[in-house]
Amino acid sequence: MARKLLYNGTIITCNAENEVIDSGAIGFEDEKIVYVGKTPDDVSLYEETIDLKGDIVLPGLVNTHGHTPMSLLRGYADDLHLQTWLEDKIWPLEAKYTPEHVKWGANLSILEMIRTGTTTFVDMYDYMDIVGKAVDEAGIRGVLCRGVIGFGSEELLQSKLKEAAEFAKNWNNAANGRITTMLSPHSPYTCSPEYISQIIDKSVELNVPLHTHMSETKYEVDKNIEDFGATPVAHLDSLGFFDRPALVAHAVHLSDADIEILARKNVSVSHNIISNLKLGSGIAPVGKMLAHGVTVSLGTDSVASNNNLDLFEEIKSVATIHKGIAQDATAISAEQALRMATIDGAAAVWLGDKTGSLEVGKDADFIVVETNQSFYYPRHNPVSHLVYSGSGRDVRDVYVQGKQILDNRQFKTIDEEKILFEANRLSRMLAE
Amino acid sequence: MARKLLYNGTIITCNAENEVIDSGAIGFEDEKIVYVGKTPDDVSLYEETIDLKGDIVLPGLVNTHGHTPMSLLRGYADDLHLQTWLEDKIWPLEAKYTPEHVKWGANLSILEMIRTGTTTFVDMYDYMDIVGKAVDEAGIRGVLCRGVIGFGSEELLQSKLKEAAEFAKNWNNAANGRITTMLSPHSPYTCSPEYISQIIDKSVELNVPLHTHMSETKYEVDKNIEDFGATPVAHLDSLGFFDRPALVAHAVHLSDADIEILARKNVSVSHNIISNLKLGSGIAPVGKMLAHGVTVSLGTDSVASNNNLDLFEEIKSVATIHKGIAQDATAISAEQALRMATIDGAAAVWLGDKTGSLEVGKDADFIVVETNQSFYYPRHNPVSHLVYSGSGRDVRDVYVQGKQILDNRQFKTIDEEKILFEANRLSRMLAE
Repeated sequence: MARKLLYNGTIITCNAENEVIDSGAIGFEDEKIVYVGKTPDDVSLYEETIDLKGDIVLPGLVNTHGHTPMSLLRGYADDLHLQTWLEDKIWPLEAKYTPEHVKWGANLSILEMIRTGTTTFVDMYDYMDIVGKAVDEAGIRGVLCRGVIGFGSEELLQSKLKEAAEFAKNWNNAANGRITTMLSPHSPYTCSPEYISQIIDKSVELNVPLHTHMSETKYEVDKNIEDFGATPVAHLDSLGFFDRPALVAHAVHLSDADIEILARKNVSVSHNIISNLKLGSGIAPVGKMLAHGVTVSLGTDSVASNNNLDLFEEIKSVATIHKGIAQDATAISAEQALRMATIDGAAAVWLGDKTGSLEVGKDADFIVVETNQSFYYPRHNPVSHLVYSGSGRDVRDVYVQGKQILDNRQFKTIDEEKILFEANRLSRMLAE
Repeated sequence: MARKLLYNGTIITCNAENEVIDSGAIGFEDEKIVYVGKTPDDVSLYEETIDLKGDIVLPGLVNTHGHTPMSLLRGYADDLHLQTWLEDKIWPLEAKYTPEHVKWGANLSILEMIRTGTTTFVDMYDYMDIVGKAVDEAGIRGVLCRGVIGFGSEELLQSKLKEAAEFAKNWNNAANGRITTMLSPHSPYTCSPEYISQIIDKSVELNVPLHTHMSETKYEVDKNIEDFGATPVAHLDSLGFFDRPALVAHAVHLSDADIEILARKNVSVSHNIISNLKLGSGIAPVGKMLAHGVTVSLGTDSVASNNNLDLFEEIKSVATIHKGIAQDATAISAEQALRMATIDGAAAVWLGDKTGSLEVGKDADFIVVETNQSFYYPRHNPVSHLVYSGSGRDVRDVYVQGKQILDNRQFKTIDEEKILFEANRLSRMLAE
């Protein structure tokens, strides 16, 4: 690939100094960033140059929890109590899923993430070979796991674990390193301690991290205490889960002792603020977690409980809701919220050396936001505008490993019309 | 004007039955809606017909609280304690405002509201003749008031009240009825009881409603009790404020007795959920207000504390945050949230017979949302998609009184490029 330079933009680096460069440029060669700084006087070193005309460049966003195939259920059921929603609506439809549903559901989600500026996402579902293939083809980056739920015969459990392990082994570092893998018991309330222990052992053997749902609802925490005499955090800790690199989704209902464990064991948290609100689960104590040094990243969860994958909404929500709850307008700054969706998200999935910030030597994963619209005027503070006024709809271009996958809002690697058509066709069949 | 028909769309009426019409159409002649229903077989009655190709038509949104000229301060100061933010940042810049700042600030806000589907907005500021002129030219609908703050000499106070009254008198029912007016003491904590009483008397004389900020912060409520021995609600009630048609913005910190007064006196509430969160003010007890029958509508407040005027964000926020707070996924349905931004908003500003729903005989104030994008797939439930997955960026066309003012995202009545340029130029001068 040629050396390319995008110049005359505002570069939001999300580096350690949180540098924002006016009249800036980003240069890259093949997969790697080779320049971040002021627009150079001499651009002749670059074969291709693009004038950003004041648009904003920032790292591609990192969405640290979701279930891409569930996009077929968007809008199928809302505003119901969690158990009714799951048992009467979501699970019966998911039981009818075939590999075709997984394929087009995953593609619909991947399309929407690219469209709104996400370049790395975590996915936990079934038929993950299909998701892996979709990631490979779309050119996005995925941190993938075949989620296993501890229901069924011992034989079924062992077959699921075997499938999860094979997926983790076969796909780790696939797609030019754009795919990494994890192992994932669904949750402490759906997997026995013995099953979780087996999964932990397997993660040691394969040298992959762990991912799970944890402490999403008060009911779940109460039940865990009743069943095992410990909070989900203490329970998982006692099983050795946190002696492995681990990412937990939700972490809404936490005791102070829980937060200390998460901090001490370097557990990554995926804060799914909108999904937690919409399902009536509650609001995670993010301020406390940050104060204890926990790595907090942002996740959308699936569109069934969100109902979109535009991570800009999570960024604005995290920067406003915690202020309102704490009645403190200084809680979680715009800069912090943006870091949660970029460099902290990358760190949460052990990719902090590859993506999540714009620095020489890292992979060229970045997005361009079109600023010639009211939401970005007056030109006081680009980070504030992105966080408080921006939307994923403002993303114009997306690059992953130096390859452009969205160009002026047009997809370069995937067939949008076909995906919308097939996703609709298959989901209508499910619902009928 | 000719008779026009938009057909083959999904019509979300927001009428009393909350009717949603698949394969629907809306017909209008001059200013008025003449048809809402299934796409008719014979469209020859209409001189102009437009195929919606499955897009969604809904009533234009109603934003019931804001300060349009403050858009020049977007991103100038964020993440500060309210008093620091006001006293060190916002007020010093506002003190430098000239009529030019008001003009271009108001235009920037009006542009953004049209762009994101708002057709009626409430505005409280100074130099309101300029705002009235901008509303007239843009073709949007405004419920306007010259806000008066009770600081300064008696002479100054009387001159402000005189100005507010003249504005209310001169502009009421102006711009072909698109402008109505109110009188507005800034708040019970910035206006003496005597001054508020004078304003109430004037509103009787001019037969216009009242608008004010009320119970936004806990500090303000505590101070009101200390100064006057009553909550702001009880205090205003004792002055006779609620014996007039009244719209109060914020209403965050309310006692049960306060809520009973608001219900009994038919007070309209403008719930400014995002601004209240961002300024760390807290979260209004919307569930309780609705249970008592209070008319709750949605407002953005100014972009200085939001930081945009996309009311779709308020709609999603109100439908998710109150679920999370109450830990009840059935709190405030998608339908309810949408009504707050349409028909309930119209009712809150005494325009429920003219706008806010799509019904024959009402003014043709409606918007078209482009659904041929992932956010609206699969086609399970258009109201859910609008509320939980949609964005003001998806609005393609806007009509007010049957006149199209946004056409395929292009403004037909205002000069976008000039407004962005002038707003930026003037605000940079302010900040320097």
